[in-house]
Order: sequence, then C-alpha cells, then structure tokens
Amino acid sequence: MLKPIGVFDSGIGGLTVVREMVRLMPHEDIVYFGDTARMPYGGKSRKTIIKYACESVDFLYSKNAKFIVAACGTVSTVLEEVLKVFASPKYNIPILGVVGPSCELAVSLSKNHKIGIIGTVSAIRSEHYKFVIKKIDPNVQVFQNACPMLAPLIENGFSRKNDKTLANIAEIYIEPLLKEKIDTLILGCTHYPIIKEVISKIAPSIKLIDSGQAAAKKLCHLLTKSKLTSDKKTPGELTLYASDLTENFSENTKLFLGKETKLKLCKF
Amino acid sequence: MLKPIGVFDSGIGGLTVVREMVRLMPHEDIVYFGDTARMPYGGKSRKTIIKYACESVDFLYSKNAKFIVAACGTVSTVLEEVLKVFASPKYNIPILGVVGPSCELAVSLSKNHKIGIIGTVSAIRSEHYKFVIKKIDPNVQVFQNACPMLAPLIENGFSRKNDKTLANIAEIYIEPLLKEKIDTLILGCTHYPIIKEVISKIAPSIKLIDSGQAAAKKLCHLLTKSKLTSDKKTPGELTLYASDLTENFSENTKLFLGKETKLKLCKF
Repeated sequence: MLKPIGVFDSGIGGLTVVREMVRLMPHEDIVYFGDTARMPYGGKSRKTIIKYACESVDFLYSKNAKFIVAACGTVSTVLEEVLKVFASPKYNIPILGVVGPSCELAVSLSKNHKIGIIGTVSAIRSEHYKFVIKKIDPNVQVFQNACPMLAPLIENGFSRKNDKTLANIAEIYIEPLLKEKIDTLILGCTHYPIIKEVISKIAPSIKLIDSGQAAAKKLCHLLTKSKLTSDKKTPGELTLYASDLTENFSENTKLFLGKETKLKLCKF
Repeated sequence: MLKPIGVFDSGIGGLTVVREMVRLMPHEDIVYFGDTARMPYGGKSRKTIIKYACESVDFLYSKNAKFIVAACGTVSTVLEEVLKVFASPKYNIPILGVVGPSCELAVSLSKNHKIGIIGTVSAIRSEHYKFVIKKIDPNVQVFQNACPMLAPLIENGFSRKNDKTLANIAEIYIEPLLKEKIDTLILGCTHYPIIKEVISKIAPSIKLIDSGQAAAKKLCHLLTKSKLTSDKKTPGELTLYASDLTENFSENTKLFLGKETKLKLCKF
C-alpha cells in the first residue's frame, strides 16, 4: 500500500501526533493539513468545528489518503458527527480521533479510577471525553477543566521562556483536579505534550496521557490489522499543507515536530 | 440619511469602538459584523487578513452601510490594500480604520515625541502604526511591542479575575517601552480599553490612546462634514452579526459593549 496517511488539525499542534507516528511507523508517507487560516478551534461552536473538520477530511480525501487521523482534541470530540457525513460508500475511508485511544489508555492505567482531563473550552464543554470513559468503565470518576490559555501560551513561545508565567497558569488549571485525587491526567489537546515537563512538576505523581502517543499506537495497530501498512523500504515523506502561513509558522512547526520540514501552502 | 454605519472586526473586541460611537452619536443605526468563526486575526498573514477584511466590507456593503469602520487594530494596518479593492465607483463607500485617528491623537498629545504602541503580532510586524506616525511628524520616535497574549487573556475572562496573571503579562510587554521614556502609548488593539486600568497602574504617568475613542471622534467629524449624519430623533439601533456563536460569546459581548444586545447570527 503506497497511499499516505492523512492527518489534520485546526493548526499545527497536531504535529506532536505526527512526531509519534513517524517514530512508530517510519516508512509511512504522511500528508498533514493544518487549518491555520481559521485556527484556533478551541472556543468555536460545535457546528462550526464540524463544518471545518468535514472540509479538512474532504481535502485529505482528495490527497488520496488511506486512513485519516484527527490530530486535535477539539475536533475529536465532534468526530461522530463528521463520520456520519462521510458514511457513504463513496468515501470508504477510516477516520481515527485522539479521544478514544487516550481514554482507553487512561482507563487501563488508572489504579484509583479517578481520571482528570484538560483541554480546550469546546472539548471540555462537549463532555465527550467523559462520555467515552464512562462507556469503557462506568465506575471511573471523571474530573475535567478547560484550559483556554495553554495553547495560546505555547503558540506564542512561552514554553521556551524562562519566566514562570506558563507554569503559574497551568497550575491554576490543574490544581482543582489534583484536589480530586486523580491518579491519571489526559492531555486532551495536542499542544500539551510540549509542556509535559511543566505539568509533571505540578503533578509529579500523576500518570500523564499523551494523546499523540496513544493515537499513534492505536493507528499502528489498525493499519496492520487492515493490511494498510506501507510497502516502502525507505523513510516515509511528510508533506505539510496549511491554509495560512501565519506569523509564527516556522518556529512553531519546528517546536511541535522537533525538526524543520518542507511545506506546501494550500489554497483553501 | 437613514442608512446605518457598518462596523467590523475579527471578533467582538471592536464593540469597544461601538460603545464610543453610541456615546458620541446616539441616533446612528449601527450594523456590526464580527468574524468569530475565523478569529483571531492577530497572528495571521497579511494576505489572509486582507482577504477576510474584504469579505467583511462586502457583507456590510450588502447591509446598505453609508460608512464603514474597521474596528480592529490588525485589520486597520492593511486597510490601504482593502481600499484598493473597493476603489471602483460601484462601491463608493468611505472606510475608516483605527490607526489614523489613534496616531493623529498620539502625535498631538505627546510632549517628548516618544510614542509607544502595543498590538497584535501582525499589526506590530507590519510597522504600519510607525509609518503613519512618521508621516504626520518625522521627528517622533516610535517604540512598539507585540502583545499576543493580552487579547486571549481578556477573551477568557482574566480581566475579571482577582489574580495577577494579566497584570504580570501586561507588565512584561509594556516595561521595555517605559524604559524608552515614552510619554504616550497607543492601545493598538480594540480589546485593550477593557484593561485600561491595569495598564494605567503599570504606566501611571503615560497618556493612553484608546483607539475606539479616537476613531469614534474622527467618524463623528467625517459624518458631519459629509452630511451623512442620521435624521433619527429616537435612539439608534445596534444589530450584531457574527460568523460563529463562540463559547464565550454572550459574556464577551457584554464585556466589550458594556450591556446586553440583540444578536443576528450571520451565515458566512
């Protein structure tokens, strides 16, 4: 199978998922679409997020993707509605979000059945993470908090600054969850792996679930099961499309991906 | 003249300009469009901001506006390019931004000819404020700093919280300008009047230029001069269109406008 895996996100935070995919599946070609012209999605309405997600899926479908990954916590909370739109046999393309894999991993790792979730306002208000966890194990107690400032702080370079601004704000958000005695915390936004160390210092004894790692592992399993893995012997190619070349684009691409990459700017 | 004034912004921060307009011109009907489905514009590319601004102008033109106000610091820095698009006699509609009025007022008030500007990344990198000030008075020294976190903090309710997060971040941004001995500071984003008191505490002896006040005063003058003022004897109506009903929409509308208002959600 020589078709690429399609990955999309509201912006380029989803590249933390790509980073894990490349590590686990180095021979896969990947086509990534970041909707930077309309990002962030985290405060937008459910209806608008569904519309944008469908347009991204359509774009990746046109790029001949064999499998699509919604590398975004916010989008993954509306994925069921998106799947309905693409249910026709015309499409016939599997779509994986980050919510399911993160919740499965969290439930399997939690010892005291108290799981915390942090994410964007839209993702948290949807209560979708909670719904998915309760479906896996109704006895788990779920505590969640929206963290609208974390992604903007990361996007604007605060994770590389020496001042304590980011840690202070992260603490305000995470403290109420620690008070509930959670032992596992889902990082429900693909930006958050960038500040894993900051969060570890705030919550040193808590197991942190990186949605990118969880989703990449699940994807690897599904590709093998469906015989969709790449036949390539050489390293896979990553092609990056974005709807806008935003002000901090190249710094952030490097930050999220961990290296420079080639870029194709998509007209959208 | 019974036509409304059209006002647009990337989101609803521009309502701080509307508030000043209503105070100065209480009989004017106002049609406002906030592009909440694609906000914020402050980190987006010049090309994308021009495209979005043109779509907003087109929308307000379709609403029969007699005069259009770009109630957004970021959009106002690309206004010359937007004006070129709407230069055809078919449109024949005047468009006013916030940069010109703010710069004129700042130059007239500064005693030591050292003016500071704070705004979004796109607005500051464009150097447009600097260009306009130097055109008015080439002897003025201009110092500027991009403040990408201020608008998200305000949008997410930090101006109403008792903690010092917002003041600390604002201080990081404003301190370098104070070191340059500015005596006047342009609040180059229509969100910033909301935190005028916070900024006053950081910069107590500095004259703060509220772009909304400056633009509303200029607009009042231009309407009178062009005989475009309203004939109404009753209070003007404000109609609010937005491209998305975002998560914090009603709280923020109230915050920026100072009161509740009726809303028409625009399909965009």
